[in-house]
Amino acid sequence: MLKVYLSGEIHTDWREQIVAGAEGLDVVFSAPVTDHEASDDCGVAILGAEADKFWHDNKGAKLNAIRTRRGIEQADVVVVRFGEKYKQWNAAFDAGYAAALGKSVIVLSMPEHQHALKEVHAAALAVTSEPRQVVEILRYVLTGALPS
Amino acid sequence: MLKVYLSGEIHTDWREQIVAGAEGLDVVFSAPVTDHEASDDCGVAILGAEADKFWHDNKGAKLNAIRTRRGIEQADVVVVRFGEKYKQWNAAFDAGYAAALGKSVIVLSMPEHQHALKEVHAAALAVTSEPRQVVEILRYVLTGALPS
Amino acid sequence: MLKVYLSGEIHTDWREQIVAGAEGLDVVFSAPVTDHEASDDCGVAILGAEADKFWHDNKGAKLNAIRTRRGIEQADVVVVRFGEKYKQWNAAFDAGYAAALGKSVIVLSMPEHQHALKEVHAAALAVTSEPRQVVEILRYVLTGALPS
Amino acid sequence: MLKVYLSGEIHTDWREQIVAGAEGLDVVFSAPVTDHEASDDCGVAILGAEADKFWHDNKGAKLNAIRTRRGIEQADVVVVRFGEKYKQWNAAFDAGYAAALGKSVIVLSMPEHQHALKEVHAAALAVTSEPRQVVEILRYVLTGALPS
Amino acid sequence: MLKVYLSGEIHTDWREQIVAGAEGLDVVFSAPVTDHEASDDCGVAILGAEADKFWHDNKGAKLNAIRTRRGIEQADVVVVRFGEKYKQWNAAFDAGYAAALGKSVIVLSMPEHQHALKEVHAAALAVTSEPRQVVEILRYVLTGALPS
Amino acid sequence: MLKVYLSGEIHTDWREQIVAGAEGLDVVFSAPVTDHEASDDCGVAILGAEADKFWHDNKGAKLNAIRTRRGIEQADVVVVRFGEKYKQWNAAFDAGYAAALGKSVIVLSMPEHQHALKEVHAAALAVTSEPRQVVEILRYVLTGALPS
Amino acid sequence: MLKVYLSGEIHTDWREQIVAGAEGLDVVFSAPVTDHEASDDCGVAILGAEADKFWHDNKGAKLNAIRTRRGIEQADVVVVRFGEKYKQWNAAFDAGYAAALGKSVIVLSMPEHQHALKEVHAAALAVTSEPRQVVEILRYVLTGALPS
Amino acid sequence: MLKVYLSGEIHTDWREQIVAGAEGLDVVFSAPVTDHEASDDCGVAILGAEADKFWHDNKGAKLNAIRTRRGIEQADVVVVRFGEKYKQWNAAFDAGYAAALGKSVIVLSMPEHQHALKEVHAAALAVTSEPRQVVEILRYVLTGALPS
Repeated sequence: MLKVYLSGEIHTDWREQIVAGAEGLDVVFSAPVTDHEASDDCGVAILGAEADKFWHDNKGAKLNAIRTRRGIEQADVVVVRFGEKYKQWNAAFDAGYAAALGKSVIVLSMPEHQHALKEVHAAALAVTSEPRQVVEILRYVLTGALPS
Repeated sequence: MLKVYLSGEIHTDWREQIVAGAEGLDVVFSAPVTDHEASDDCGVAILGAEADKFWHDNKGAKLNAIRTRRGIEQADVVVVRFGEKYKQWNAAFDAGYAAALGKSVIVLSMPEHQHALKEVHAAALAVTSEPRQVVEILRYVLTGALPS
Repeated sequence: MLKVYLSGEIHTDWREQIVAGAEGLDVVFSAPVTDHEASDDCGVAILGAEADKFWHDNKGAKLNAIRTRRGIEQADVVVVRFGEKYKQWNAAFDAGYAAALGKSVIVLSMPEHQHALKEVHAAALAVTSEPRQVVEILRYVLTGALPS
Repeated sequence: MLKVYLSGEIHTDWREQIVAGAEGLDVVFSAPVTDHEASDDCGVAILGAEADKFWHDNKGAKLNAIRTRRGIEQADVVVVRFGEKYKQWNAAFDAGYAAALGKSVIVLSMPEHQHALKEVHAAALAVTSEPRQVVEILRYVLTGALPS
Repeated sequence: MLKVYLSGEIHTDWREQIVAGAEGLDVVFSAPVTDHEASDDCGVAILGAEADKFWHDNKGAKLNAIRTRRGIEQADVVVVRFGEKYKQWNAAFDAGYAAALGKSVIVLSMPEHQHALKEVHAAALAVTSEPRQVVEILRYVLTGALPS
Repeated sequence: MLKVYLSGEIHTDWREQIVAGAEGLDVVFSAPVTDHEASDDCGVAILGAEADKFWHDNKGAKLNAIRTRRGIEQADVVVVRFGEKYKQWNAAFDAGYAAALGKSVIVLSMPEHQHALKEVHAAALAVTSEPRQVVEILRYVLTGALPS
Repeated sequence: MLKVYLSGEIHTDWREQIVAGAEGLDVVFSAPVTDHEASDDCGVAILGAEADKFWHDNKGAKLNAIRTRRGIEQADVVVVRFGEKYKQWNAAFDAGYAAALGKSVIVLSMPEHQHALKEVHAAALAVTSEPRQVVEILRYVLTGALPS
Repeated sequence: MLKVYLSGEIHTDWREQIVAGAEGLDVVFSAPVTDHEASDDCGVAILGAEADKFWHDNKGAKLNAIRTRRGIEQADVVVVRFGEKYKQWNAAFDAGYAAALGKSVIVLSMPEHQHALKEVHAAALAVTSEPRQVVEILRYVLTGALPS
């Protein structure tokens, strides 16, 4: 059983595409909470409101860290997706975290970000631009079968 | 002797400010190569030209990794600077790498990036907005003296 | 499956509240022996009486360590409860032990202890004051659902 | 050279007694910032004021952690002092942190705390009640000489 | 499930006593090959004869190490039995190996060996003289129940 | 359950012989992709063609590393086969990788390579020349039974 | 100070070229014993003769391992040279050993070995074909200066 | 500089022979306290008398562990000497401790103990019977020079 953590962008359906494509493979996926609002507000919703936005975000980011660090630490493969919008520093942070733990990192990024992602790409075992390629890698790694 | 690695933005003089401010303290600083052009082209300059920009960058990023990973791994404190411009995914990558190794992370960032950096901030032991504050932390950590 | 170790105070039913609240979640709880008398006397009951109270306690504390260290080491999340009474140095010791191993620490403490616990709180990913909040964190971490 | 970290109580001169007693031995001591006020306020003094006492303390405890974790991680021996007053959960936290890292822990405590400290004592290689004994241990460990 | 490795003496039925006594507990036991002759000759039986007794023994000890190291590394608790006869350096070696890995060590030894075993005892969380006591420890660690 | 990774030569049926011989034993085997062509071309087949043979091979070797590193890291025993032909540096690389991780290494090699393999042999717990011997080792390690 | 271990081929002067080229840089080099005969015979010369070539070589390879493992473990950078002749499995073994420890690996190899070395190359941060390039990398990593 | 810890027997001058023989080599030696009486009584001499011999010895063994564990953990090479007399379980314990930490172990033992030490020998990189051989190994490892 291959454990795969799907890190990064939460605004498109790339995770669903990979999960659907990997049907039938011996893979277990995990991921951060992808409900943007819940993810942003979880800290204050559970632990109490904060007047200062910094602490509002800090409380939330720490709760999310319980899930994301465990996801990365228990994974065999960490897929990190960089999408079109936003700063996405959390995705790059996860990539660095995974690399330092010796995880196999697969990046799923866009050609226009190639230069900006060169350090992240250099720490990855594969750089892809389509969810389909991630699925093909998982299938190859598990079964030896290549796309026909 | 406190070993401090200064990661991130290479377009302003924040490193010089910190080094100057820390004069007289028992600190040794290290940093990535901050000559932008050398850093971009080191791979092909030494190992031979590449037709494809991806491999041009890949060769360079890997050479730089020899220096940056060692810098982070040997550091007690990793300061990560997020500046005004560019994607700066390498800075976030370094922060994640340092966090996974259990290093003390200090972030030096701008107020307007607060929300986007919340995961990185949550992994830090201090979030600063001025190089002067980094110096004050180093002084306090080493000597117990606070800014008057 | 999330592995959660419930460390600290053994005089109120906070563990039962959390376990009951987490019913239906994919969590496995572990905890120290919470029978105060058994915990105090286990060493001499099994290994033979001691004239000196120090060694009486030492034998017992070491037997308990077989259980508690394993509980912490195998946990994803360590909840540390500080109650109203007693010194509770074992709770703080467990928090330090868990923090050094990189575990996600949740503290369950009382507002009047805020200042005294600041170092422990600073090592935690969440500081709660009610067992209900711990349950809400576990539910959020596992399912993404926030309390309504 | 033996590296010794002196953790815990900051209200009596036990550190000075040990340092003076160990004169001439090949020991290097480190310790937390022992100026109570500076230690409490360092966070807001450097990083900016907080309305909420929790965050005031949190900022400070995190800055102090840069120093204390490094002190413990680089030490061969961690001496943890429990004094007469206060909760001293930070001392017990340090003991747990040191134990998890496999450091040699020496506790310096008072007879009346024996039972409450039994878990901490059980993780220690020596339990002392006088600074003089800590010095004698350091001398014996380094030179083989016993007190005459 | 508690994983327990039973190291040491292979000439009496102490392992059988512990396994029988622990019936009904959630324990899985492992142990070295306890057929003395097979253990001594396994190397040459599989890998070919040796003229020199040193290499005869070396080949065998290395094959046995595949089993014993795995047993210790995967165990939560390592019980080390010192019996009446022979040098039993392999038992002490296993105790040291287990201690360095941070395993919970229980020693099962004879009163007359107390002084000679003091370093091994000092690394153990319990020192017993009867297999029954080992069972009682396992039961207490797993269920909290003390012998009546 | 013993986890065994079968590294090295992919041109003869040594893996099949071991798997067949170990039938009935509590062993789970893993291995690299042994379809030579798929293994060579997987990188470009999934990630896109490369003009330069170096990058063609680099992309493939990195994809294969996702599988092989996981196989070695999760194994209890790593069997490394050196066959008759080719450079087989990947086999020796795997042996070094496994040795550094403290895995039990069994080498399956040919007498004529004895001198050239002396460093690899010195890091192994067994040196065999026949698949049958590997099976006998696995049977002995798991059951204590020697070949009759 | 950069610690560099020079592994592999011992029949040409590539080490001397690198050491000479790196004059003036803050580098300390280490290497295996490069006197072929001493390296082959050290075991029996010190520990006594062996009738069987396997044990002759085994004794020697283990003595050499005292030096080579320490060299690799203490290095920041491991340069692995593959020359024209011989099997050179020890070089590939060292590369695997270094990679598993997370060392920065630089390979110095010949174009005709490109395909056979693809797994080793894929684990390296740089692949060079001339000692001069290794020197240029060391200079760049330490000073940021590129070859003019 | 090679760090060598000299463990085991304290009744003959083997340590002095090795230290004298290694004069001029870049070696730093460490060792346990070799004054038998001080080593036995250090615990009670510093920490107070014990009525029970077990605790008398326990206190002493723990103080000695501060020195011996540090000695082993900081060593590159651990030499373990088994002499003529006594049980010497502490020597075998140290060998196991050193082996688990991946240290290079050299055993210095007597031919009549060959069979009893086979597990310890199998974990060593060299088995010697004379202090002179240990010196020759250290010289070879550091300089490449063999005994003439």
